[in-house]
Amino acid sequence: MGKKKELEARIDRLKAKVRALKGKLGDGAAAAAPATKAKNPVSPLAPAAFPALPVIEGVAFSATAAGVRYAGRTDVMLARIAPGATIAGVFTTSATRAACVLDCQAKLAGTVDEAAGAAIIVNSGNANAFTGAAGQASVDAVTTAVADALGLPAHRVFSSSTGVIGEPLPHERIVEAVSKLVTALDAEGMEAAARAIMTTDTFPKGASAEIAAEGGAIHIAGIAKGSGMIAPNMATMLVYIFTDAKISAKLLQKMLSRQVDDTFNAITVDSDTSTSDALILAATGKSPAAEITDLRSKAAKDFEAALRSVMMDLAHQVVRDGEGATKFVEVRVSGAETVADAHKVAMAVANSPLVKTALAGEDANWGRVVAAVGKSGAKADRDRLRISFGDMVLAENGARVPDYSEEAASAYMKGQELVIGVDLGLGDAAKSVFTCDLTHRYIDINADYRS
Amino acid sequence: MGKKKELEARIDRLKAKVRALKGKLGDGAAAAAPATKAKNPVSPLAPAAFPALPVIEGVAFSATAAGVRYAGRTDVMLARIAPGATIAGVFTTSATRAACVLDCQAKLAGTVDEAAGAAIIVNSGNANAFTGAAGQASVDAVTTAVADALGLPAHRVFSSSTGVIGEPLPHERIVEAVSKLVTALDAEGMEAAARAIMTTDTFPKGASAEIAAEGGAIHIAGIAKGSGMIAPNMATMLVYIFTDAKISAKLLQKMLSRQVDDTFNAITVDSDTSTSDALILAATGKSPAAEITDLRSKAAKDFEAALRSVMMDLAHQVVRDGEGATKFVEVRVSGAETVADAHKVAMAVANSPLVKTALAGEDANWGRVVAAVGKSGAKADRDRLRISFGDMVLAENGARVPDYSEEAASAYMKGQELVIGVDLGLGDAAKSVFTCDLTHRYIDINADYRS
Repeated sequence: MGKKKELEARIDRLKAKVRALKGKLGDGAAAAAPATKAKNPVSPLAPAAFPALPVIEGVAFSATAAGVRYAGRTDVMLARIAPGATIAGVFTTSATRAACVLDCQAKLAGTVDEAAGAAIIVNSGNANAFTGAAGQASVDAVTTAVADALGLPAHRVFSSSTGVIGEPLPHERIVEAVSKLVTALDAEGMEAAARAIMTTDTFPKGASAEIAAEGGAIHIAGIAKGSGMIAPNMATMLVYIFTDAKISAKLLQKMLSRQVDDTFNAITVDSDTSTSDALILAATGKSPAAEITDLRSKAAKDFEAALRSVMMDLAHQVVRDGEGATKFVEVRVSGAETVADAHKVAMAVANSPLVKTALAGEDANWGRVVAAVGKSGAKADRDRLRISFGDMVLAENGARVPDYSEEAASAYMKGQELVIGVDLGLGDAAKSVFTCDLTHRYIDINADYRS
Repeated sequence: MGKKKELEARIDRLKAKVRALKGKLGDGAAAAAPATKAKNPVSPLAPAAFPALPVIEGVAFSATAAGVRYAGRTDVMLARIAPGATIAGVFTTSATRAACVLDCQAKLAGTVDEAAGAAIIVNSGNANAFTGAAGQASVDAVTTAVADALGLPAHRVFSSSTGVIGEPLPHERIVEAVSKLVTALDAEGMEAAARAIMTTDTFPKGASAEIAAEGGAIHIAGIAKGSGMIAPNMATMLVYIFTDAKISAKLLQKMLSRQVDDTFNAITVDSDTSTSDALILAATGKSPAAEITDLRSKAAKDFEAALRSVMMDLAHQVVRDGEGATKFVEVRVSGAETVADAHKVAMAVANSPLVKTALAGEDANWGRVVAAVGKSGAKADRDRLRISFGDMVLAENGARVPDYSEEAASAYMKGQELVIGVDLGLGDAAKSVFTCDLTHRYIDINADYRS
């Protein structure tokens, strides 16, 4: 299977080459050809299959095709969450955030009736962002319809929208679909939900964890979507995580907020931060395990570690489905004076178009890593810098190592999973950021995304 | 296995297609050579011809093929500047700047013997960046050879290197070429010099201005190279500007420094800041015009305006030769609270891969402009934002305009010169930044630049 994928990826690269060459020849038809309308091939970095997710007691899912924008596929998901559940969330810090994001933030910040239960409704195909007063009206229409159908107060219905920015949301299509969604609710419907929220994603993303706690097991399961405009800032793309743990909203929010920096805020596909990033975490309290009440307890630590692993897994899957990605790359910065500096350097390397195109071309052009470190704005000393690919040190103390081997460096670049190491030699702070390469396919996808 | 064979056969067919298309693209050698080695087609945004540059009295140029990296083309230029000339410079703020940049900065900051004259030597093909102590030794070898050959003190010989980062500079090839360069010095050799400093540039860049001053004319002429790793920060790529004005180094530096923000610091091709950016401005004082001694005088203002126009012209040419560029785009931000905020927003839009790929695809996806404004970190209010393409307002007050026309917006995108307007509606500060689109060719060029 790996071999087959590799061959298919090669075919895609050759096809892109043919397109590029045809473009150069001035073959108008070829240049304008709807490459982007060809079926989106599955990322070569995709996991073999969608994981088997545990049922989270107290949560049920459904999905349907409401025709928001796409034809012939599901595009709306609903999650119903049982009474008593606690909910936490993190959202984009964009100054132009979407109406649904503002609505979620307001609802989580207000007085909350946890006893009533809750729901999440998400559509793909239209982001309902930069849609003015009409945007909030659409959110109200959709969340009210769900609240009425499920007998919930409107302030416990959260909504997200993902897709094109600036076009009014045809919310009546979603409202019409609500009764069908309610009827179809199913505790095992999480994979269908993961598929309904995809836009340019080439595979649905899911992850789970189980904690053996005192009194019984605690389960966590989550889904996410990517795949472009991925440079989360204090938030993420669309992610929904559910657990049967018993835990207050306050503790849940605290854990979520502090785990987001190393997970979703540590990935970037294209340096573009979305208007719609949202991560909602719901805890139903249905596990027989004892309530988590103290952050310093073993139970809390175990739960937070499991939550982190689910978040990290989903974040990595988003990178693996980065638009056009053929390489999964960790940029591992160490020896910084502060974590903020390490983060700056890692992001500068991970977002550098020159580094990303060299990765795509399997060119061991580590000089571009040096340039990216230099432009990052973080404290760096050229003569203390060490650059490595995997375990291979390529440069240190401001120059190439004496036994530098172009062959070995080039051979390393052929791999599908790469680690670029940057040690600043200044302190003890470290940070890893995860990214992918920049290929022709990214341009194919984005030069004509809307049509 | 049958499936595998079928895929391999497909790869073979695609390879044959690639070969055939390459053959059609021109020279027979190209058929066998990798795509990136095919002749770099001239940017569609290139000026019709290299401009006729005036002779700057007191400066002579030469160029030669020293074989630093490229074969069959010139790759080293020398400029000799007459005794009495004053010199100013601005350089990259990269923390990993090249040895030659550090050397220029040290020489300009030290005690200077203006009576002795000066020289500039530049090579392409190797950046002599991140080359440790060997890097400074190479700079010393090259500048000493020039100083000896021209009878100059070494502290008045400035050098630049541009090309691959991290490989030792074969400086002996440049040293060997010095006597040939000195013999060939010619007051009319500026175009040859502009050609010798090109790397992935597809056309040489020159610009000039003439000021009718009291006592006689003052001339300014300059050359520059781009074309990738272009996101200057308080400096620029490689730019050399010469004038016969009589003006102190202090005044010259003051004018240069304050004009760089709106010119070279206002362009970006790919958000990557070089290790080697350098702009050197030399004034020979050979014009019969009176010395410029007061920044507030008409003579100073006229000269500074002319200098700005030459800098702006060269900066725009660098964008027009941005790797793979097919569109020249001004991002014009107004209504900001501060110029710094306007700059942040303009750069966020100009560097957004999603905006740049939409430009390449001629897709009027203005929602991506909104998202870029949102992520910029500058103060912005969604509900006061106005987005326009050329004279056409697409969105204002947080939503699409009622009479929005997709046809009109799409028609505008077909143009080669585009203006994206963003009015923040918050204040009076404005800033324009110049950029190009992100096309397949950028990836072709950069996925395999070193080989």
